[in-house]
Amino acid sequence: MAIRLGPNRYGKAEVRLVRAGGSSGIQDLNVSVALSGDLEATHLTGDNGGVLPTDTMKNTVYAFAREHGIGSPEEFGLRLARHFVATQPQIKSAKITIQGYEWERLGPHSFQRRGDHTRLTVVTVIGDESQVVAGIEGLVLMNTTDSEFHGFPRDRYTTLPETTDRILATEVNARWRGVADFAAVKQSLVDAFVGTYSYSLQQTLYAMGSRVLEEHPEVAEIRLALPNKHHYLVDLSPFGLDNPGEVFIAGDRPYGLIEGTVTRDDTQPAIAEWF
Amino acid sequence: MAIRLGPNRYGKAEVRLVRAGGSSGIQDLNVSVALSGDLEATHLTGDNGGVLPTDTMKNTVYAFAREHGIGSPEEFGLRLARHFVATQPQIKSAKITIQGYEWERLGPHSFQRRGDHTRLTVVTVIGDESQVVAGIEGLVLMNTTDSEFHGFPRDRYTTLPETTDRILATEVNARWRGVADFAAVKQSLVDAFVGTYSYSLQQTLYAMGSRVLEEHPEVAEIRLALPNKHHYLVDLSPFGLDNPGEVFIAGDRPYGLIEGTVTRDDTQPAIAEWF
Amino acid sequence: MAIRLGPNRYGKAEVRLVRAGGSSGIQDLNVSVALSGDLEATHLTGDNGGVLPTDTMKNTVYAFAREHGIGSPEEFGLRLARHFVATQPQIKSAKITIQGYEWERLGPHSFQRRGDHTRLTVVTVIGDESQVVAGIEGLVLMNTTDSEFHGFPRDRYTTLPETTDRILATEVNARWRGVADFAAVKQSLVDAFVGTYSYSLQQTLYAMGSRVLEEHPEVAEIRLALPNKHHYLVDLSPFGLDNPGEVFIAGDRPYGLIEGTVTRDDTQPAIAEWF
Amino acid sequence: MAIRLGPNRYGKAEVRLVRAGGSSGIQDLNVSVALSGDLEATHLTGDNGGVLPTDTMKNTVYAFAREHGIGSPEEFGLRLARHFVATQPQIKSAKITIQGYEWERLGPHSFQRRGDHTRLTVVTVIGDESQVVAGIEGLVLMNTTDSEFHGFPRDRYTTLPETTDRILATEVNARWRGVADFAAVKQSLVDAFVGTYSYSLQQTLYAMGSRVLEEHPEVAEIRLALPNKHHYLVDLSPFGLDNPGEVFIAGDRPYGLIEGTVTRDDTQPAIAEWF
Repeated sequence: MAIRLGPNRYGKAEVRLVRAGGSSGIQDLNVSVALSGDLEATHLTGDNGGVLPTDTMKNTVYAFAREHGIGSPEEFGLRLARHFVATQPQIKSAKITIQGYEWERLGPHSFQRRGDHTRLTVVTVIGDESQVVAGIEGLVLMNTTDSEFHGFPRDRYTTLPETTDRILATEVNARWRGVADFAAVKQSLVDAFVGTYSYSLQQTLYAMGSRVLEEHPEVAEIRLALPNKHHYLVDLSPFGLDNPGEVFIAGDRPYGLIEGTVTRDDTQPAIAEWF
Repeated sequence: MAIRLGPNRYGKAEVRLVRAGGSSGIQDLNVSVALSGDLEATHLTGDNGGVLPTDTMKNTVYAFAREHGIGSPEEFGLRLARHFVATQPQIKSAKITIQGYEWERLGPHSFQRRGDHTRLTVVTVIGDESQVVAGIEGLVLMNTTDSEFHGFPRDRYTTLPETTDRILATEVNARWRGVADFAAVKQSLVDAFVGTYSYSLQQTLYAMGSRVLEEHPEVAEIRLALPNKHHYLVDLSPFGLDNPGEVFIAGDRPYGLIEGTVTRDDTQPAIAEWF
Repeated sequence: MAIRLGPNRYGKAEVRLVRAGGSSGIQDLNVSVALSGDLEATHLTGDNGGVLPTDTMKNTVYAFAREHGIGSPEEFGLRLARHFVATQPQIKSAKITIQGYEWERLGPHSFQRRGDHTRLTVVTVIGDESQVVAGIEGLVLMNTTDSEFHGFPRDRYTTLPETTDRILATEVNARWRGVADFAAVKQSLVDAFVGTYSYSLQQTLYAMGSRVLEEHPEVAEIRLALPNKHHYLVDLSPFGLDNPGEVFIAGDRPYGLIEGTVTRDDTQPAIAEWF
Repeated sequence: MAIRLGPNRYGKAEVRLVRAGGSSGIQDLNVSVALSGDLEATHLTGDNGGVLPTDTMKNTVYAFAREHGIGSPEEFGLRLARHFVATQPQIKSAKITIQGYEWERLGPHSFQRRGDHTRLTVVTVIGDESQVVAGIEGLVLMNTTDSEFHGFPRDRYTTLPETTDRILATEVNARWRGVADFAAVKQSLVDAFVGTYSYSLQQTLYAMGSRVLEEHPEVAEIRLALPNKHHYLVDLSPFGLDNPGEVFIAGDRPYGLIEGTVTRDDTQPAIAEWF
């Protein structure tokens, strides 16, 4: 029995980059770099001969934004990832994670930050291969009706009544493999949420995922993580009041959490963990 | 020398209330109640004869939403505050603080939560008098140019260069006394931020505040707290690159914090602390 | 009727300062500066002739930590506040707010950050006068018994049962006027919480505050803000189980919030808002 | 080409459970349940015949805490996971994640919450097999010296100077496979951090991981994620001051992030993703 180093990576996280001044408005990104490869020496002996400083990664992010522009976050991520793999002999793989914050234009040089969602980009380059994952985080949606939940198994610990009318609310967190138009994928997700008469949040999840695959052939597969943001109908009977689906407690914790992948049966496997 | 009880209050904080089902869409509020009055007994001896339970305050919030509807948050806050002062003999003053989260309609019963700002309402009732304060929190705005900063005093510790072109970004946190149209006040704040060629964030603050007073005679005075969300131009010269106002670091901490009140010279004094 | 500038201040917030290397271990502070005085020009015309840059305030914090050391946070705050008032003619008042994070020593040069509370210091200098406020934030305490709550008024909206045995848990947030030994004041607060058989959180609050005043004559008055961190006994009867004070839900929101001041009847009035 | 459901799971997240009253003091847990198996029907048609409600999972957590006690979080997690797999025919796998908050005893029934770290437990049961992962999150450590960083490669974007004396600070986030004494593993991690003269945070990471494996044969492998919490020496030369390793800026973002696994060469493979 011997002790040895297993999988590892290192990098600079959360490099906050804003690019202004171009005709495309503001680009507001949070960029993280993670590199892996032959990094045993620094772990075992502190020999840093192969350890490009994380400070250099930060510098590279800022310099590339000026040298090459950003373009789409997918392009920017690929450019960065390929650079590190190509120029650092010991580095075999680079993962670039980008959170993007959107701003709405208010005037020729004035903007308002939208706070309703974050755009996610995760690019992985391994040698000559690459993988692009896009996503959305934090988009909160609600249907005030057209949601039921019944027919579930009951055991000794089940007290939940069946319901044929409830609020369905969730925060959409999704990641998809492939390069597609972000706004259009977002619209597909929203359309499916709005348009699905739901018997379970799982059914809504599948409807959202399959809608994206149907409408965006560039997307190979999609993973959704949907918290069930429970809204509890308040029992107002102690006060002599009815409550016909009107007054709710918005709960914090606990919450349901529904996670699922929707895929194509002919999808190429991912080259790296993607959700 | 004797020890005694000074100013005090108590209540239920952060009652999360969602009202759905009406034609006005979703109302999504976070309601806090704070009561004060003759509460010495419970502090000194644990005699709770005058202490309406905070649990009852929570119940009242939910019950009132059904009994009376919500209407505007100002109306809801006043109704609640007056109720507690009117019905609890020992209570002399009630303060109701409401954070409101806005949702955009996506369909007949579908909504998306906006995340770009929170609406604030603070109602205080003292005996027969009342005070209504409205506000906005978390609205992030940026001008990418039309901002200078120079002419400031320099001492031994001053290293900041003067600039005739910088990014000006802030998160608008404002409170105003008086009942006005919320969306219109928000628009006045945005218009003044967008339209002001700025030599200091203080100048922008005053422009925003005075614009609100000019356009909304119902507003007696306004308090703004504007963090200066610094964007630092990256020095790319070590990499042989110039950086003509293009690539910035979005800083977290420290940040400037500019706070100021804009008022009318004939304003009636506030009956209670309002910012 | 004319529009004019009201109360205002500006400064640099959250300057993160760590001082190491001395025999006293690590000093880890978050320092905020706010200055006020004759600042009308910058608000009205953008004339910054009296506006010491907030960047200079940041520099001063770091330079003073080297030039003068830090000493106690009270000393550091006073030195900074007096410096700004003394050297900037237009500045009449300076407020220095310091959050301090404590570290435990693990070895000659090794430390572990405590996360159980933050130490607060707020120094205000107005001309020749000064005021020192100390405080503690985030200290979470619980008594699993020796807490009752009954005898309260009941109205139409009251459903809370009376109880003669409940969990009492709170997060201590306190501020006191005067310079006293921080650890000793913290101990007084803890001792009073632990030692008080409680009929209401208000009673515990008063016991905590009066204990501090009794044991620390340097403290003129103290303000406590105590959230009532509710622990709800779970009804396990649907599962054929009793629950004799054993299994609880730790609630998030809503929570009770009890705030109160304990003072001396011969206290000099505060020269500035202190809580 | 057809669209189909891929990997999925669902459950109740963040069930806040406090158990009091026993001789072992307070147990304060945040329990999340995730189940997977044959769940296609609910996704495709909304048929919930196999979907045990997440509300039932919550009830089960509370009921089990009374029926069986909690014991160690590992025992509690295994009991819950096995229950769901054993009693729900369509469920093939259960993952129970538990965050534990520690309290220090102050008196017979009085406690103070420690805030310096969280204890993590992740139990996975797949059919008859089980896997236990333990961990720690949020433990912040600092060495003020005995840390160097040099000998690294330099490219066009490298500006970092080499250093033979720097602060090394990190927040320990670790997970290990196997059932060991939590406090003892924590002590091994701390001892290795304190005792390692470090040429890179990677070297410290490996020292921490290998120390745990050496001292705890029950641990099969360990994963550490160590942010490099940068402390930047302030340049005080503009103010005519030197700064011999004394005054630092504690940076927020960006930060380095070093992640690595230390394992044994005869380790059995994990049955499920464990970090």
